[in-house]
Amino acid sequence: MTVNHARRRAALAALLDGVEAVLVTWPVNVRYLTGLDSSNAAVLVRADGTAKLATDSRYIERARGLDIEVVEARDVAKELAVPGVGIEAAHMTVAVFQRLDRPVPMEPLVEKVRTVKDDHELELIRTACAISDQAFGDISGNIRPGLTERDVARILEARMIELGADKPAFESIVASGENGAVPHHTPGERQLRRGDLVTLDFGALYQGYHADMTRTVSLGEPADWQRDLYNLVADAQKAGRHALTPGAVTGDVDRAARSIIEAAGHGDDFRHGLGHGVGLEIHEDPFLGPSRTGRLEDRVPITVEPGVYLPGRGGVRIEDTLVTRVDGPELLTKTTKELLVL
Amino acid sequence: MTVNHARRRAALAALLDGVEAVLVTWPVNVRYLTGLDSSNAAVLVRADGTAKLATDSRYIERARGLDIEVVEARDVAKELAVPGVGIEAAHMTVAVFQRLDRPVPMEPLVEKVRTVKDDHELELIRTACAISDQAFGDISGNIRPGLTERDVARILEARMIELGADKPAFESIVASGENGAVPHHTPGERQLRRGDLVTLDFGALYQGYHADMTRTVSLGEPADWQRDLYNLVADAQKAGRHALTPGAVTGDVDRAARSIIEAAGHGDDFRHGLGHGVGLEIHEDPFLGPSRTGRLEDRVPITVEPGVYLPGRGGVRIEDTLVTRVDGPELLTKTTKELLVL
Repeated sequence: MTVNHARRRAALAALLDGVEAVLVTWPVNVRYLTGLDSSNAAVLVRADGTAKLATDSRYIERARGLDIEVVEARDVAKELAVPGVGIEAAHMTVAVFQRLDRPVPMEPLVEKVRTVKDDHELELIRTACAISDQAFGDISGNIRPGLTERDVARILEARMIELGADKPAFESIVASGENGAVPHHTPGERQLRRGDLVTLDFGALYQGYHADMTRTVSLGEPADWQRDLYNLVADAQKAGRHALTPGAVTGDVDRAARSIIEAAGHGDDFRHGLGHGVGLEIHEDPFLGPSRTGRLEDRVPITVEPGVYLPGRGGVRIEDTLVTRVDGPELLTKTTKELLVL
Repeated sequence: MTVNHARRRAALAALLDGVEAVLVTWPVNVRYLTGLDSSNAAVLVRADGTAKLATDSRYIERARGLDIEVVEARDVAKELAVPGVGIEAAHMTVAVFQRLDRPVPMEPLVEKVRTVKDDHELELIRTACAISDQAFGDISGNIRPGLTERDVARILEARMIELGADKPAFESIVASGENGAVPHHTPGERQLRRGDLVTLDFGALYQGYHADMTRTVSLGEPADWQRDLYNLVADAQKAGRHALTPGAVTGDVDRAARSIIEAAGHGDDFRHGLGHGVGLEIHEDPFLGPSRTGRLEDRVPITVEPGVYLPGRGGVRIEDTLVTRVDGPELLTKTTKELLVL
């Protein structure tokens, strides 16, 4: 499957309004538009769809193999900028901005193009999710009392790398017992204990594309409150998945899951949005949240990840990565969502 | 060993000139000044040394445990900014800059304070380097013909994580045979072969601090040209290490190594600076290069990494992380620099 970077640049050019050209400097966006993975590169895309790439001596050989005009420079933004050029306000630093001639700050445009994925991208995200699933399956039998959260995170991350991940897609979360009440808990020296719920939030990075999944498991038979909490979150997660359809309003998808948690009296214990797009970044458009108003498109990889967090007690989060499809979402993270008792 | 963040903030305050306060938003710098590791936080440091930290709900509990006044906010820069506040021009985005009242772009200041490390930081960098050394020692016996570059990178990275690294300090480089001529080669599907020189550039991240080391090994007995190249780079690396002394001009340290490579007729094949500081970032002040004019201080962790790259044939790079000391540099990466024949 070949990637058509020129088509991506044409899609960006079609969005230009009020400027003759846009200077893209954010590395993820440069990679998307050209195929070049570089920490110092920029691409100028003109309204007519023509484009030029600049990078420094470290990357110039790779750049010359791409389907775009290339120039070598150290100050890549300065090299390509034209007077009145559009710039990425969300990414360009003040120091670079000050060196240009009448730059025009613009809203995110490449991010908009990136939302809907092409076949090549979907295939890479599928692989990233398959690696994540398999790594979890391979190591879940090793999750046992006495290991620290950090131990579990290391074992899981090492397994993803063995299975072909470039690296973990983000810092894995392993939150056990009362730590499960902290949505972004950093794995620490707490040892797992019988009776814990343990939340694992992790994913593989594969050729630049991210997977994101969360499972909560029980060490030993769960108490009634733990099983009830799990079932509540699983019900909400299912409702969220079923609401994922092209054309749906992002706030409505969030509500489909959130209303179930609210009805159970735990609305205040679900303190984040329902999900987010994934792709070249782990968090990207679109975002699912109570006040979001955009509409989902077709072929958008996105997470559904409700959680309930009870301070001092623990928590449950269940998360899949899926792709919106006209005939119902495609599930990419296929590990069971039955409560695993280890 | 406790960290005195207030002392770091006082050192920053002492550098303020022309502004009443500086708004620090770069996550690495926020972490350095407060201890908070967050993707969305800012700290305002006033000329009198007082300070205030802002972060969002995800990090607020951790922030409240620190020795600084804390406020919860989503738009952390806007929350803390005062009219005419100094900002980090090298880091703040145009989008944030535009939301503030008469912000004053400033040169890097926290980076200047960060250059000289305290005991706590040196201890963490020592540990990061020790993990890197041990991982290399543990896996070097497994480097053999038939493995791909990616295989070797994975094995090495997995071992660093098993040994306690948070993660790799950067994307490891494994460059074999002719790929050794590319200084920043990305490990690929090329299989190692007998007769290859293989360059491994890698390091561990430990509690936020980076190690950086490179060794070039030979698969089987090296040819004469390979051994000569190796000895040349080793001689240059040694000269660079010996020139590392507080008070030395950074350009002179570079020259100490480079002149040896130039004398051998390979000046054009050593196409990057001799080294760089390491700490909370993998590349930070000071930088060693031909045109650098700053002077080294005491207690500065820095790399010495000359290389010679012969297009189409291969290359050699040898790199240590050391700390400048009045009585001679402290070597942190202790793996032998004799040519290893595997």
